[in-house]
Parts: sequence; structure tokens; C-alpha cells
Amino acid sequence: MSYSTLVTTFTKLYRYQHLAAIAGWDQAAMMPSKGNDARGAALAELAVLMHDTLVAPELAASFAKAAAETVDPIERASLREMQRVWRAATVLPASLVEAKALAGSRCEHAWRTQRKANDWNGFLANWRPVVDCARQEAALLAEATGLAPYDALIDRFEPGMTSAVIEPIFAELKRWLPPLVQEVLAKQRNETVIAAKGPFSVDKQRALGLEVMKLLGFDFDAGRLDVSTHPFCGGVAEDVRITTRYRDDDFVQAMMGVVHETGHARYEQRLPREWVHLPLGQARSMGVHESQSLSFEMQLGRSRPFLELMAPLVKKHLGDQPAFAAENLARIYTRVRPGFIRVDADELTYPMHVILRFEIERALIERAIEPDDVPALWDEKMRAYLGLDTHGNYTDGCLQDIHWTDGSFGYFPSYTLGALYAAQYFATIRAKVPELDARIAAGDLAPIVDWFESNIWTQASRWDTAELISRATGAPLSTAHFERHLRARYLAG
Amino acid sequence: MSYSTLVTTFTKLYRYQHLAAIAGWDQAAMMPSKGNDARGAALAELAVLMHDTLVAPELAASFAKAAAETVDPIERASLREMQRVWRAATVLPASLVEAKALAGSRCEHAWRTQRKANDWNGFLANWRPVVDCARQEAALLAEATGLAPYDALIDRFEPGMTSAVIEPIFAELKRWLPPLVQEVLAKQRNETVIAAKGPFSVDKQRALGLEVMKLLGFDFDAGRLDVSTHPFCGGVAEDVRITTRYRDDDFVQAMMGVVHETGHARYEQRLPREWVHLPLGQARSMGVHESQSLSFEMQLGRSRPFLELMAPLVKKHLGDQPAFAAENLARIYTRVRPGFIRVDADELTYPMHVILRFEIERALIERAIEPDDVPALWDEKMRAYLGLDTHGNYTDGCLQDIHWTDGSFGYFPSYTLGALYAAQYFATIRAKVPELDARIAAGDLAPIVDWFESNIWTQASRWDTAELISRATGAPLSTAHFERHLRARYLAG
Repeated sequence: MSYSTLVTTFTKLYRYQHLAAIAGWDQAAMMPSKGNDARGAALAELAVLMHDTLVAPELAASFAKAAAETVDPIERASLREMQRVWRAATVLPASLVEAKALAGSRCEHAWRTQRKANDWNGFLANWRPVVDCARQEAALLAEATGLAPYDALIDRFEPGMTSAVIEPIFAELKRWLPPLVQEVLAKQRNETVIAAKGPFSVDKQRALGLEVMKLLGFDFDAGRLDVSTHPFCGGVAEDVRITTRYRDDDFVQAMMGVVHETGHARYEQRLPREWVHLPLGQARSMGVHESQSLSFEMQLGRSRPFLELMAPLVKKHLGDQPAFAAENLARIYTRVRPGFIRVDADELTYPMHVILRFEIERALIERAIEPDDVPALWDEKMRAYLGLDTHGNYTDGCLQDIHWTDGSFGYFPSYTLGALYAAQYFATIRAKVPELDARIAAGDLAPIVDWFESNIWTQASRWDTAELISRATGAPLSTAHFERHLRARYLAG
Repeated sequence: MSYSTLVTTFTKLYRYQHLAAIAGWDQAAMMPSKGNDARGAALAELAVLMHDTLVAPELAASFAKAAAETVDPIERASLREMQRVWRAATVLPASLVEAKALAGSRCEHAWRTQRKANDWNGFLANWRPVVDCARQEAALLAEATGLAPYDALIDRFEPGMTSAVIEPIFAELKRWLPPLVQEVLAKQRNETVIAAKGPFSVDKQRALGLEVMKLLGFDFDAGRLDVSTHPFCGGVAEDVRITTRYRDDDFVQAMMGVVHETGHARYEQRLPREWVHLPLGQARSMGVHESQSLSFEMQLGRSRPFLELMAPLVKKHLGDQPAFAAENLARIYTRVRPGFIRVDADELTYPMHVILRFEIERALIERAIEPDDVPALWDEKMRAYLGLDTHGNYTDGCLQDIHWTDGSFGYFPSYTLGALYAAQYFATIRAKVPELDARIAAGDLAPIVDWFESNIWTQASRWDTAELISRATGAPLSTAHFERHLRARYLAG
């Protein structure tokens, strides 16, 4: 009885969330500039409504009763996920939520110009209150969950994941990844990569993208491809909106961006419909979501057999040229080059950017360091992990990302966890289907899709991440599969 | 104090309405088919929320207090418009709203196949309860407003307008319009119209449409042009979304459709920003809205000087051909041909379709006739007004429109009122600016735009329609301007 009361409330929230998602997608992909103030006000009003719906005192009573009454295992899992959402809304006092939003929005707004001006001191003044709010938030979440403060922040993005699990995994990566990068750089020094010659019209790139999405099984009756400044996967499970961006002198990023977002999209499109209106029916976590996009982009998309499949499509849409030979496409898409900017990083160097952020933000939240200490630490780690000097270069250093400006701490590890999950999935699939590469090259992606369908997509939030991974792959998370994958891709042949 | 409480509530409603408008636009212009159920549920939830917000008992108390306290004339007008919205939400019991929605949705859904099958009897069975609900609705609205039942329905679309005003106006039209149609048909029998030769690609038609919108002053930083099955003007005042549809064998309808919707759009884009969050700041009525689109489409768009301006643009985008001479475009856009279908009707025969609907739906609501009587009456009037035989042809007769299927009675008169207002505006502008045609042909639309800006757009819902028209044109509504306009356009030269 109390459980069904909760279902009614969460169904209402799911419908409100639908409107927030579509209006949010529209804001990024469709809305003209003068619509922004009214849209912001409308979305803020909806956020207040959703928050008020969650903090209604009747809901607390329903949760207490439901916890005692509910015995069905699915309903218990559903209740656990509802409670996660409810806790996130109720633990923080409105005054802190407001202070954080204000400090974050002030810091982010100024950051847009401060980044370009390399103005660390200007940024620091706005960022101190942001960090302060995040520390208070972490302390309150820690109290409510029994987790350590930084772990309580991670838990919002990767439920059940803790620093105690992440730290040895990242320690492993730090041990073998930097030397591997050097080894690969040495090997690639002798390789010739033919650059593709543009211009490539947006229409043609879009047609290519749509054909790749079709090949990857995107359901166009339940989603769209559009354009936005920052590519993303949005919308709702029943109607998934992915975006990309086009440069007319280069098709490489737009095409692989579409593959990446299609990974996110297929997960959303195949979440179980019977739970779609409940937290139980949502994607498990940011890390698992990223594991889908990285499965599509890194494990599948940049693989030689997939690029064999792509080469004729690229030629069909963009015309024939030497750069479009499968072998050259594979070289383009596996080129390694350590750089300052995380979002531009290749598969090999990306985890080192993430580890750097993880170590710094954890120390910040645990008060082991202060905001003032960040640039020096950043420079030290950048030098150690990627051999790059960022001294005095804040623009391409600690000011490069938007994430920290509004206090979104705890999110970065998800990217690399996603890469590790993806490698582990593919090792599992390969063990089951030894002829996988041949089937991919023949355009038969069923072994991959079917495995995701059974093991990840239809599971939604039925299990916590650790159990989801163990059930799917038969083993807990390990870095071994990722290492084998990288050595095979970047050093073999 | 109570007034400001009401402002707070209506500001919240304005923000909810923003989400409804954008999600509604998306549903028509962007959404893939499988998104429809979730969208419908989300929009219905939002409608419930908006309704609940309006019927909250505190609001009744605020209205009572504000009515006594408010003295400022703008605030009193604002209060009047708030009360109109509030009354629409509170007068009808939830049971009737639900019964009407159910009956309407059942009738409309079956109508889609019944229309094609010419199945009047099948339709009738579903339509009787729809008419019954509409009669109950009219009776309750009549009780609350002191108006006659059908007038109470009109009042929702054209505040202040009554059958007593409409009837003599329509009687005038019935007197001179049918013979005028015959006169014009006789004249046009000897005219040669050169048909344009397609195909016309969607991209080129779209580029032409965008250039026409630019010429008409559409603000692209505050709106968009997209495609939908049924063209409309949606979105919000700060971000107006118009749509059109393209046929690749014909550009005529899509181009003039863009001119029509741009008329709606400019009204929305120039509503006064200081009232945009209140009912006072909304467009006056459906009739006044239609007067803007018809000013743009009929008064301006199909005029010879405007088509002189358009001819080089059409040639620029669609290539040169004899059909694109201004004289021939004018013949295309003023061709008169009585037909069965209202939405395909020309400027001259359109009002006769509307008068027929007005007379039938008024008799229905007043219980002078029953649903069973409609086809015979339709046939009789179609014969008398347009000389067409629709006997036994329900598909192209009383089953042609979606409007009646869900009980939207009282709306049809707005179309022809809009045409009359538009003719009266232009007569006023011409009296002030005798060289208007020369200025239009030179691409100078400022005399028109400036007049609308001062007299209509910035006035929003400050006055009821009758006063708005009198203030703008110096006289009450008359058919004389419309008649003079038609005779000048269709018989002169």
C-alpha cells in the first residue's frame, strides 16, 4: 500500500522529468538565444516543483511504512532506488542548495572569461566558496550514508563505489599506463598517417552519421540526431536525443562522436519499459552509462574490423580518398598524443587526466589541501603522468574544465571506470564468441548487442554497480582486461 | 497585496505554460512516433498541475480581496484577464472536463478512419455524447458569465464577442459575397494562369521561406522555422516557433503559409515584455491573432506590390520560369474556386464556409437542431452559399474538420472576424499612408509594422477586442472595408 503510494509519486516525478529533459535538450539543440531567460525560469520552477514533491512530509511516512512492508525482491530494489533519489533531495538544507547554486553560477560565469585570460587568482576568489559548499555537502551526505565525505560524493554518480575500491585500481593504472604510453609513442613515431582532405559538408557528414547510427541499431522511431555545441545524449528513454557537432575541415570527431553517443542512446532505448517510470528503471550510473558509450566508441568503434566496415560508408558519403582506407582510418583513430586537454585526449592518455582530477578533488574534499594548492599539484602530476609542463598555464591546466566551477566533485572517476567496465565486457563477449572480429567486419553486431541487452540494458538499476558487473562478467572489476586490450590494439602488429 | 499574490501564482503558471508550449511544439515538429505516449502522459500531468494551481481555494480569496483593493487601471485590466483564465478553470466540474475529454478523444480517434470511409452513422454514435458535453459546458459557462450558451463558448476565443454582433455582420456577408464570387468566377474564366513547374527541393523552399520571414521582420534570435503536418505558430512569446509543410511539386502553399504564420509570430514576438508573464500580456484573442496572420497573408502577402517584391526572391531560390512573373504570381494567389474543403478555400469563398459552421454549431448548442440534422443542413447551406452538392458526401462535408470531433465549438467565427479586422486595419493604414503600395513594392514595410506595433502588438490584452479595434481604427467593426478590399483586388483592372 505504501509502496504503491510511492509509485504514484515517482510516476508523477518521471513525467515532470520528461518535460525537464525535453526542454533541456531543446535549450541546447534548438532554442534561439533570446529564449534563454524564460527557459531558465521555467526549468527552475520545475526543479522547485520536483524538489517540493520529494520533500513532502507524507513521503517520509510512506518510506517508513514501505520499508517495513515490502518483501518482493524487485519492489525492494525499487524502494532502494527511490530512497536514493529521495535522500539526495532531503539531506541537504535548502539554504545550502541555494548557496551552492549561487556560488557555482557566479564562479562558472566568471570562469568563461577568466579561463581565456589565464586568471587563476580571479577564479580562486570565486572558487573558494564553491569548494566550501561542496565540503559541507559532502559532510552532510556522509552523515546520511555512513560513507566517507568524498565517497558520499562519488556515490551520487556511481552508487556503491568508494575510494577504497578506486584507489588500488588507479594505482595499477599509474604503474603500467605511463610507460605503455611511451612505448606506443615510440612505435607510432615511424607510422605515416594520411590526413583526410576537406571540406566535408555538414549534410554529408550528417548522412554518414545517420547511417552509422542505423548500423549500430539506433531506433529512429524513438530518437533523433541533432547538433549542439557540446555533444550529449539527452531526452527520455522513450525518445532519446543525441547530438554531435560538425567541423567542415574534419569529419573524424563528429563521426566517432556519433558512435559514442549512440552507445549512450542504445542503453536508454533498451531500458526495461515496465520500470521506465521508476528510479529502478533508470540507467544504473554515470560510470555504467559511460561504459556503454566507450564500448561503442573505444572497444567497437576504433577497432580494426569496425573500421573495415566503416571505410566503404565513409567513401560513399565523403568521396574516395587515400585517407579513407581502413588501415589509415585505424591509424587516425588510434593515434596517441599526450596533451593538456582531457576532452581531446586519446584512449591511452585519458585515464591519466582522470586520475589527476580524482587525486586532487579527493584531497580537496578531505581538506588535505586547499584551493590555493591546486595549480602546483596539477603541474606536478601532469609532469609525472604525461610528461607535460603546465607551470603558469592555467588556461590549459586547472581552468580547462567546467566541472569544478559549479562544485560537481566525485564525477571524474566515472569516465575511467566506464573504460574499465567496457574492456571487461568485451573480454567476456570475446571469450564467448571467439570469432567476434570476423563477425564485426561482416557487419554482424548481434553478439555484442545481444550481450548488452541481456546483461546491462534490461537490468537498469536492479543491482548496484559492483553486482551488475560481477553478474555480467563473472568477476569483480579488474584493470587486466583494459591493459590487455590496450597492448593488443596499440603494440601488436 | 492580494494582487501581488495573484501575480506570483500567474507567474508560476506562465512558467508551466512555457514547458507545455515547448513540449507541444516538439511533439508536432520534432518528436519521433514512439515518444508519443510518454509525452502525452507528461503533458496531461502538467495540465492537471496547472488546473490544480488555478482551483486552489486560496486563489478565490485572493481574487475577492484584489477585486476590492485594486485601483490602478493597468492592474484592473490585468485582474480582469486573470479572472477570465481562472473562471475557465473553475466553472466546469472535473467530472464534466473528464467526460468531455474522453468523449472527444474517442470521437476524434474513430473519426480518422470514419472520415475516409464516409461513415456518418459510425461518427454520429460517438459524436452525440461530444455535443451533449458541449451543451452542458455552454450552460455552465452561460450561468457564470451571464451570456447566452453559444456566446459563452465564443467568449473563450473572442472575449466580448456575441452572436448579436456576429449575426448582422455575417448577414451582410451572405448578402453580397455569393454574388461577388460568381462575378469573379466569370471574370477569371478568361484569365490564363501559368502553373509553376516543379520539382522544388525542400532546401530551396526553406531558404526562400527564411528570406521571406526576414523581409517580414521575424526575429530569428527569438524563434525558428520548422516542419509539421499541420502548420502552426507555437512556442512562447520569447521564442516563437512557426512551422510549414513542403510539397516538392508545389511551392505556392508553403511560401504563403510562411507569410501567414509569420503574421502570428510577429504579434507574439512584439507582445509587451513587462506583462509577458501575465494573462494581460498575452495576445488578445484567436480572432485578433488571425487578424495578424491574415493581414500578413491576405492584405499584404497576396497583394500585387508585395508579389512584385517576392518575384525576384522566388526566382533567386527556385530558378527563373514564366510562372514566377509578378503578374502571374498575383493570378495564382488570387485564383477563386469554390470547393468542399474549408482549409483549401480562397480568400473569397472562405467566409461562406465559416458562416455555414457558425449557423450549424450555434443551432446545435441552442438545441434548435440535433446532431442527426447536420448533414441535411450542411448540404442545403453548401448549395445556397457556394453552389456545391455535398449530398451523401460526408468525407468532404461535415466530416472534413477535426474541430467538431472533440467539441471545440465557438471557434470558427474567429477566422472570418480576423479577415474583417485585417481589412479594417489596412483601410486605416492606407488612409494614413496613401502611397502604401509603392512603399510595399519598394520593400519598405515600416508603415504597416509600425502601425501594428503601436495599435495591436504592444496592446496585448489591455482592452477587450471591440475596444482594441475601435481604438486602432477609429470605428467599430464593419464589413465595408472587407468588401471594398475584395472588389478592388478581384474585380478591378
